[in-house]
Amino acid sequence: MCENIKVTVWNEYRHEKSDERVGKVYPKGMHRAIADYLDGQPGIVKLRTATLDEPAHGLTDEVLADTDVLTWWGHMAHHEVSDQVVEKVHARVMEGMGLVVLHSGHMSRPFVKLMGTGCGLRWREAAEKERLWVVSPGHPIAEGIGDYIEIPHTEMYGEHFDIPAPDELVLVSWFAGGEVFRSGCCFYRGMGKIFYFRPGHETFPIYYQEEVLRVIYNGVQWAAPVARPRPVSGNTEPLEDLGAK
Amino acid sequence: MCENIKVTVWNEYRHEKSDERVGKVYPKGMHRAIADYLDGQPGIVKLRTATLDEPAHGLTDEVLADTDVLTWWGHMAHHEVSDQVVEKVHARVMEGMGLVVLHSGHMSRPFVKLMGTGCGLRWREAAEKERLWVVSPGHPIAEGIGDYIEIPHTEMYGEHFDIPAPDELVLVSWFAGGEVFRSGCCFYRGMGKIFYFRPGHETFPIYYQEEVLRVIYNGVQWAAPVARPRPVSGNTEPLEDLGAK
Amino acid sequence: MCENIKVTVWNEYRHEKSDERVGKVYPKGMHRAIADYLDGQPGIVKLRTATLDEPAHGLTDEVLADTDVLTWWGHMAHHEVSDQVVEKVHARVMEGMGLVVLHSGHMSRPFVKLMGTGCGLRWREAAEKERLWVVSPGHPIAEGIGDYIEIPHTEMYGEHFDIPAPDELVLVSWFAGGEVFRSGCCFYRGMGKIFYFRPGHETFPIYYQEEVLRVIYNGVQWAAPVARPRPVSGNTEPLEDLGAK
Amino acid sequence: MCENIKVTVWNEYRHEKSDERVGKVYPKGMHRAIADYLDGQPGIVKLRTATLDEPAHGLTDEVLADTDVLTWWGHMAHHEVSDQVVEKVHARVMEGMGLVVLHSGHMSRPFVKLMGTGCGLRWREAAEKERLWVVSPGHPIAEGIGDYIEIPHTEMYGEHFDIPAPDELVLVSWFAGGEVFRSGCCFYRGMGKIFYFRPGHETFPIYYQEEVLRVIYNGVQWAAPVARPRPVSGNTEPLEDLGAK
Repeated sequence: MCENIKVTVWNEYRHEKSDERVGKVYPKGMHRAIADYLDGQPGIVKLRTATLDEPAHGLTDEVLADTDVLTWWGHMAHHEVSDQVVEKVHARVMEGMGLVVLHSGHMSRPFVKLMGTGCGLRWREAAEKERLWVVSPGHPIAEGIGDYIEIPHTEMYGEHFDIPAPDELVLVSWFAGGEVFRSGCCFYRGMGKIFYFRPGHETFPIYYQEEVLRVIYNGVQWAAPVARPRPVSGNTEPLEDLGAK
Repeated sequence: MCENIKVTVWNEYRHEKSDERVGKVYPKGMHRAIADYLDGQPGIVKLRTATLDEPAHGLTDEVLADTDVLTWWGHMAHHEVSDQVVEKVHARVMEGMGLVVLHSGHMSRPFVKLMGTGCGLRWREAAEKERLWVVSPGHPIAEGIGDYIEIPHTEMYGEHFDIPAPDELVLVSWFAGGEVFRSGCCFYRGMGKIFYFRPGHETFPIYYQEEVLRVIYNGVQWAAPVARPRPVSGNTEPLEDLGAK
Repeated sequence: MCENIKVTVWNEYRHEKSDERVGKVYPKGMHRAIADYLDGQPGIVKLRTATLDEPAHGLTDEVLADTDVLTWWGHMAHHEVSDQVVEKVHARVMEGMGLVVLHSGHMSRPFVKLMGTGCGLRWREAAEKERLWVVSPGHPIAEGIGDYIEIPHTEMYGEHFDIPAPDELVLVSWFAGGEVFRSGCCFYRGMGKIFYFRPGHETFPIYYQEEVLRVIYNGVQWAAPVARPRPVSGNTEPLEDLGAK
Repeated sequence: MCENIKVTVWNEYRHEKSDERVGKVYPKGMHRAIADYLDGQPGIVKLRTATLDEPAHGLTDEVLADTDVLTWWGHMAHHEVSDQVVEKVHARVMEGMGLVVLHSGHMSRPFVKLMGTGCGLRWREAAEKERLWVVSPGHPIAEGIGDYIEIPHTEMYGEHFDIPAPDELVLVSWFAGGEVFRSGCCFYRGMGKIFYFRPGHETFPIYYQEEVLRVIYNGVQWAAPVARPRPVSGNTEPLEDLGAK
């Protein structure tokens, strides 16, 4: 359990190339910052990255079939993700692939399809302080984390966050400007598991912060598939008389 | 609260016209059996029906805007429900409209879109016995119901039912042939509430059974909208300094 | 449904008599402020108050049997509530009585027994600002409330709040000093329903604030019992052969 | 994660000694059957057993402090478990110890205290057939298990099972005599995790059935503590002005 996980770190990878400020913070892209942390962690045996502008957005059938957990960061180009890739990612989650959705990925097409709701929220770009409080202290995603994580400067995301109530709520954010947000949210869907984790704006060096990276790693472990057959569905005739004993 | 509810009972209304056996059980359609029970119940002030073959499937903008709770039965013609109506029903649920999905409606397009999962299940048409056990005895949807409801002859639906875990699980079915099923499932989505209720095959007189109708009525009351504004979303700049006191 | 509710408003009623500042804010006790609002609201047909220093703490068998929803405020004298009353309140919740637990009632003996956990939290008395954000906008307890309720000066309660994850989470608080708190929490227990609602310190006039009182009223309605028999338990022999059909 | 788990298998161990039929099925006690399976499984580094008639029921402070996950089977002598041990087990769960409660342990004193409800159910001893269906196919407790587990002859437990709704529902049982039951239930409480698993009557050889033992092992892994400090609670004055940025 929690072993031999193959991870693909997906990134839109546009801001870093088009905006000089972002490029300075993440010269090789946010995916590299995340991948560099995850690579070689216990239980992770393969680490790939994939980005929007690669063929098939880097998510070919081969790559998806060989991915246990996919992490997703997107923002300005959600609409450029093809129908085909959205359907394939969704299908893989139904089969058991884990999905860790980061920050502005809340409006990514695979996440919105999986949630079934609007996924909107309040936001404000004012470099304010955030604290992510642990509300489920025995949850594996909180492993290695103190009572809260403090991020000195970040974009604000505030409630109401238009998602289904998470199956497990692990982290709730406080923002200096007066808002709260459900920031660490676990969902079981089909055979798959989805972890939404809020931190990670492109203009702040948040993906270099140890505690943030640790939660992503914990989320990858939590979302890893379990080894079992997919449930049978469809017609199960004929009726068998099982008797009372 | 729970007052002045306007209900629209939607039915595909094809089996009743194309299959003589079904037509004998429900000569005026399943929607009429349901509507006849709901009409005039306390709290329900308006009762409409709507069917697939009406223009806009009977769900014009005027009808949807004037509907607090929509009940949905469909089966053989899910794919004939137009994209436009699917989107409009979804949007109305996000705004607060209640949705009560019946039996084979588990594969209806609005329900599948709201769930975000495959919504598949096991099934068997063998006229076997079903018992729906109450697992949440203080839930308003169980009002007026005993420890279980027994349906003498029905189609079987069995787990795994590929839905998100319900926010509130009220009823679990037992089937003579060896299966169980989460049969009464509550979901909060956007401002809306969705109640999935399993009973109701077209060839059995299930929509004449008092306890089944009572649960539908309870579900309509539970799913009724609450009076409050829709949450604000989007940009909430500028940052205000709220101070420590 | 939601009709003919008999409410008993329970208050420890000590601070108001022993502390002059509190006595000025609530000269007739906090219970009177709450009762004055609830009395005569739609659906409420009987309104009593009861306090710690009355015989049986005002909660005789007759009173409890005639109470559909009990609200509870206690703080400095939790330990003076008798074992007998704790057991009787617990038993009535199991039978279906609603319980609305306010503010420092989080450490009251009936609540701790019902939760099964420690029920501790962080706190700070610094008259800071609080905002209670609605995270479940379609929930009946949020009826009539905007995106958030602002309380200008209050005691802080912060996470981790050591309760089971609520069955429905309706409100999350933000505090000026940097904390968050699950402030509106619904629990189903036995046949009963429990609503924990955070606001209400003794030295602030919070129980005169319209939105706070409205949430208490909504909570009373939500927690009202449903009309149905209590589930049968125990030996259900002999085994009957139900057959396959 | 999920490594170096120290397990203590607790058993009342009375039926085996007082009832010849039970003694024949479990000559060394049910705890030995369970312990023999768990001992040496991946991730389990220490395996103890403890029984009611040992001093301190075998659960001294040293043993409890050195236990990551405790499994519990009791039935006829629940009331003989001392107040002190009940309190200590409860306190250890609050600190993070996992608890796997088996079969008739649903009425054990530690479990009832943790649940806060009556924990009653229907039952029938008629050696009937049971099927435990997986309703959460991506859950780690379902690893290695097919669509259902079939137990040929067992005691029946039926709904309503008077527990809080589980935080995660993994298994639902079907019984030949017409009942259903929530048989695999996960609860987060304090820093600890509790898994209730229904199978295991004393007169049937259920603790030799591979799939049943596998679920117990999965439950032990799921319930293992996470490495993190216990949340701070209590007074957190003074108020600090965090500013808006």
